[in-house]
Formats: sequence, C-alpha cells, structure tokens
Amino acid sequence: MSDAVRRDPSDRSVRFLKACRAEPVDRTPVWFMRQAGRALPEYREIRKRHGLLEITRMPDLCAEVTLQPVERLGVDAAILFADITLPFEGLGFAFEIREGVGPVVFEPISSARDVERLRPFDPQEWVAPLIEAIRLVRGRSPVPLIGFAGAPFTLASYLVEGGPTRTFQKVKAFMHAEPRAWESLMRGLVEATGAYLSAQVSAGAQALQVFDSWAGALSPHDYRASVMPHMRRLLAALPAEVPTIHFGTGTAGILPFMAEAGGDVIGVDWRIDIDRAREAVGGRPVQGNLDPTVAAGPWEAAAAQARAILEAVSGRPGHVFNLGHGVLPHTPVGSLQRLVDLVHGWPLAGREAGR
Amino acid sequence: MSDAVRRDPSDRSVRFLKACRAEPVDRTPVWFMRQAGRALPEYREIRKRHGLLEITRMPDLCAEVTLQPVERLGVDAAILFADITLPFEGLGFAFEIREGVGPVVFEPISSARDVERLRPFDPQEWVAPLIEAIRLVRGRSPVPLIGFAGAPFTLASYLVEGGPTRTFQKVKAFMHAEPRAWESLMRGLVEATGAYLSAQVSAGAQALQVFDSWAGALSPHDYRASVMPHMRRLLAALPAEVPTIHFGTGTAGILPFMAEAGGDVIGVDWRIDIDRAREAVGGRPVQGNLDPTVAAGPWEAAAAQARAILEAVSGRPGHVFNLGHGVLPHTPVGSLQRLVDLVHGWPLAGREAGR
Repeated sequence: MSDAVRRDPSDRSVRFLKACRAEPVDRTPVWFMRQAGRALPEYREIRKRHGLLEITRMPDLCAEVTLQPVERLGVDAAILFADITLPFEGLGFAFEIREGVGPVVFEPISSARDVERLRPFDPQEWVAPLIEAIRLVRGRSPVPLIGFAGAPFTLASYLVEGGPTRTFQKVKAFMHAEPRAWESLMRGLVEATGAYLSAQVSAGAQALQVFDSWAGALSPHDYRASVMPHMRRLLAALPAEVPTIHFGTGTAGILPFMAEAGGDVIGVDWRIDIDRAREAVGGRPVQGNLDPTVAAGPWEAAAAQARAILEAVSGRPGHVFNLGHGVLPHTPVGSLQRLVDLVHGWPLAGREAGR
Repeated sequence: MSDAVRRDPSDRSVRFLKACRAEPVDRTPVWFMRQAGRALPEYREIRKRHGLLEITRMPDLCAEVTLQPVERLGVDAAILFADITLPFEGLGFAFEIREGVGPVVFEPISSARDVERLRPFDPQEWVAPLIEAIRLVRGRSPVPLIGFAGAPFTLASYLVEGGPTRTFQKVKAFMHAEPRAWESLMRGLVEATGAYLSAQVSAGAQALQVFDSWAGALSPHDYRASVMPHMRRLLAALPAEVPTIHFGTGTAGILPFMAEAGGDVIGVDWRIDIDRAREAVGGRPVQGNLDPTVAAGPWEAAAAQARAILEAVSGRPGHVFNLGHGVLPHTPVGSLQRLVDLVHGWPLAGREAGR
C-alpha cells in the first residue's frame, strides 16, 4: 500500500475522533503525548531562542510548535503545546519550570489556610495567547486538535509538594490531615480546570485530555474517597460535544474507578496489558500503551511491543495508539515516524471501516 | 481482651509461617518492611556511631538491630537487617549507600562487555558476619526470622543505572539492545541470589522474601520476556523447607505473571485493592498492603485503611499484614505499635483457628 493511500487526508482528519467514539476506522489512529516538544530538532531550534512558557504566550509560535509533529510524524491528532502547570499563576501560585527538575511552585500549600490563596481562574485573563493559538491551529491543521489540562489531584500534588515527588507524602498527608481544606482545594481546582477546558473547546479544541498523571500513586481507597468524586464532577461538566480522554500513569489498580469517574476514552500507561486494561474499564475505548523508554530504545523492541499492542486490541473499534506517557527527550524521531507507519499499516481485522 | 492473651507467645511464634502456608491462624500476622531501621529511635541512636553497611558487618549489633522492632512493635516476624545491595561488592561492583540518595554503583554496567565483570558470589567470603547474625537472631528471637535478597531485575537496575532511577531507561535499553548480555547478567544474578538465600536458610532463616521492588516499572510484555523466566528458575531453586514471599511495587498489571513465576506468598503494594490482588494471583496468600505514606500520616486515616484491608481479606486464611513498601523514616513509632494492635485485635471471621 502506498503512502498516498495510507495517508488519505479525509480519513486522517476523522479517524482519531471516530476511535474516541468506538466507531470503526480505516486505520488505528496514533498520536504521542509530548509529541510537540523536546524530541523534535525543529522544536529544540526554537527553544534556543524562547523558553517553554514564553512559547505558550506567543500564539503564532505556539501554533507552529503544536503543528510540527503533525507535519514531521504524520500523527492523526495535534495536541496543544502547553503545560499542565500553566494555570498555576492565575490560580495564585507563582512557579517556574526548572530544567532537569520540572515545575517548582515557590510557595506551596502547607496548611489549610494556604488553600485560601487559591483564586478563581479566568482563562481570558491568564491564557489568552494560548486560546488564540488554538484558533490558529484550527485554521491550519489537517487533523483534530486536542486541548488538555491537569486533573485536580495531579495539580494539587504540585501545589502541595512544591514540585515533582516520588513519595507524594506531603499531598497525601494533607489530604488525610485536612479533609475540609482538601475538599475546598479540589473544588477550586475542578472549577478552574473546567473553565480552562471549556475555553479551549470554545476556541476550537475538538477533543480534551485530562491528565491525572499521578493518580496512580494513590491507593484505590484514597482514590475513591478523595479524588473520584471530584473527577466525576469535572468530567460531567465538560462540553459534551467533544470526546474526553481520562489519563493517568501507574493506574492498573484503579482503572475501574477512573472509568467510573468518567471519560469517553481511558488513557493507560504501559504497566498493564492493553486488553486487560480495556476489560478493567468495562470495554470503553482505550488509549496507549507503549512504554516511552521502549519507544526511545532499539527499534526492533519498540516495533515488537507496538505490534503486540495492536494484536491485543485488533478488530475491536475504540483504540487510539499512543505511548503510555510522554515522549522522552532522547527518543529518535525516526522511531516515532516508523511507529506511525507501523500503526497505520497494521491490518485491522476485517477492515473495521468495511463492517 | 488483654494484651497477655493477644500476645500469647506460642501463637506469636507460628502465626506468620502458618499464614504463609494459607493455614488458619489465631490472629492476622503483621510485620513491616524496613521495620528494623530509621523509624526507631534506638536504631537512630546506633546509627550515630555506626554506618548502615558497618552494622551488617558486626553480627552482634546486626542481630540487635534486627530484634529491636520485635521488642518495640510486637510484630510477628523479624527480618534480617541488611540491604539488597549488600552482595554487590562480592559480585565485583563497588558501591556506597549515599544519604538521601540511595545505593550508588561506582562503575555501572554500560556495555555487554561489562557483564563479564560479574563474579560468582560466595556468601561465606563476602557476608559471613551477616550469616553469623542470623544464627544469633535465631537463638534470641521469639518470632520467625525472614531472610531476604534483591531479585535479579531489581539488582540489575542498580548495576546498570548506577543508582536509583525514575525512568529505568538505561536498564530497559540494555535489556533490549543486548539480549545476550542481559541473559548472562540475569543468569549470574539468579545464581548469586540463590546462593545468598540458601546460605541464609542454612544459617537459620525460616522464611525468605525476594524483593523485585522495581519489577513494576516494566510492561507485562517485558516482564514476561526478560524477567519471568529468571524469577521462575530462582524461586524453584530456593530451599523448599521455608516459605518464599515474592514482592514488588507498582505490580498491579503484572501480578498474574509474578504469581506464575513463583513464590508461596505474593507481596503487593498499596496501588491495588488487596482482594483484587489476591484474585489476580489465583487466590495465593498475599502480603500487604497499607500505603507507607498513609501509615506515616494521621493515625485515623492509617487506621481506617488498615481496617479496610482487614475487612477485604477477612475470614480467608493466607494474609500477612504489612505496608505496601518500606516504613518511611518519619513514621511515628506509635502508629506502628497501634497498627500491630489493630491487626492483632481484628476479629477473624469465625476465628480461623477454631475451624
């Protein structure tokens, strides 16, 4: 099959959204978390002159970076170039993204009282250039655009820990020691995240991904008691006209509860077989689940594991191919391109589209 | 019920081993990973004068530290005070345990050739004082003694990464890029670990725990292909007269394969409900699964989650209560003591022992 056929532009424009709705597709759609960013040389070129946050404040440049992987890799969806910490400043928490560390919040929440510092988030006031970038991307992109935000627990983990953490001990201790302040923090973040995501849809985002990246650090007990009710309210309040992907890592033990909280598609990492994940979420569409470190390593291993994923879900509509977390900086661009070709070239049992 | 009844010494000496064999017990047995160590003031007192590795080279002191939590907390098993990295020097890899970092291997494996540096491990040559400590503990302990070792993959992750890691990218890349060297590394580590654990049993260890602490970083695909066969050989070769606990963290997605590899008891972390974990391992005895950060936090939350765990497995023999990973340094000793009392006071449905 020629590339021309494989990349029929009309199919490419719809297969991602169809898969999110569990509708038959001509090819399995594929995109990569953090596809816009550090693995691409053209992005690194731009980063020589502009900081990450700076790019998100320059609509034209932000749109350009968002579209780079669509051109370069041939993926079936674009995802807005941004960071889940972006709303922090508007929420009242100054922060920076420190090279080699990650987001650092200067004055983290350390008492119930600190939660009162949380301000309502107005997207027009704080992220207008990003909203403008969405409009620009929509005018230029051959594929659907995904908007996104961090989920309340994941945002709270940065606001309480003050930065990345391995143990999540401060945020868990806060959750247990200050249940009322926790409730109030989560409510504030649900509201802010809802407003942020709705503004993205109003500007043209055609799908949404909610990153509860660190929810998998919690026991199912804590997830159900302290996170799930808030996720349920958030996901129920999002614009119904676009599909929502509910994503987390290390979630093999809480997938049924994430599904219960909501989301049209459940995003899973690599630490569970995708067919078992799909079973755990009651057959709902799934997105994933190639290990990013495997994608960054020798091509033959990446290809073998990509094939195993496609094999496991073959013939059942409702799979979006992706990595299990973001593209690692040292991932060869060639491997990402070959993964896209491999996924697009994978024969769907009985050609889903033809059924 | 009085403490005297609750701590009947004859029961205390057997309930852990009975639970490992899925036999009825009078009380749910409980011990804590890293119970001998940093959470206890009497240990911190000793650490003012002696380094961690130094203690493992002084049989009498090592036995004392091993027994401290048995006295102080009333747990139903002792675990040898040691570290999974202890055999590294004998294996040909110099290392140190760096405060606040963890184990650091000075010249990690970075090529297939480096695997040739791996030497056969002779416990008598390298850890004779530790073996002597086992004999001393056996003469003094009112409860069974657990010996332990790191599992080949977890040891390999340190030897290849050179220290703790979040991404495991070097060890995964090595596994995929150098399959023959990986095979040879794993074989060497299986042999070394087998010899080490067998020596512990010969000296008197009454149970063994194999810490594959980082196996949960792998996709099920990688686990099955590159780790499971080696774990199967290791676990099959261990002395059959003592029960073996096969432990890892973040393993919700690979539990069926860990169980397939072997172990009389499967140790699970907190990121899966214990009843679902038990189902995933085919009903085999399980150990766990309280979140260590929850145990370190407000008592009421710790108690509520401990009760939920006991409730979930209640009335089914074959549960050893433990945390889902090691005791965190800032855990209140009082919380650990209360957890032991809570577990011992938990009414077993129909009193297992009486059935």
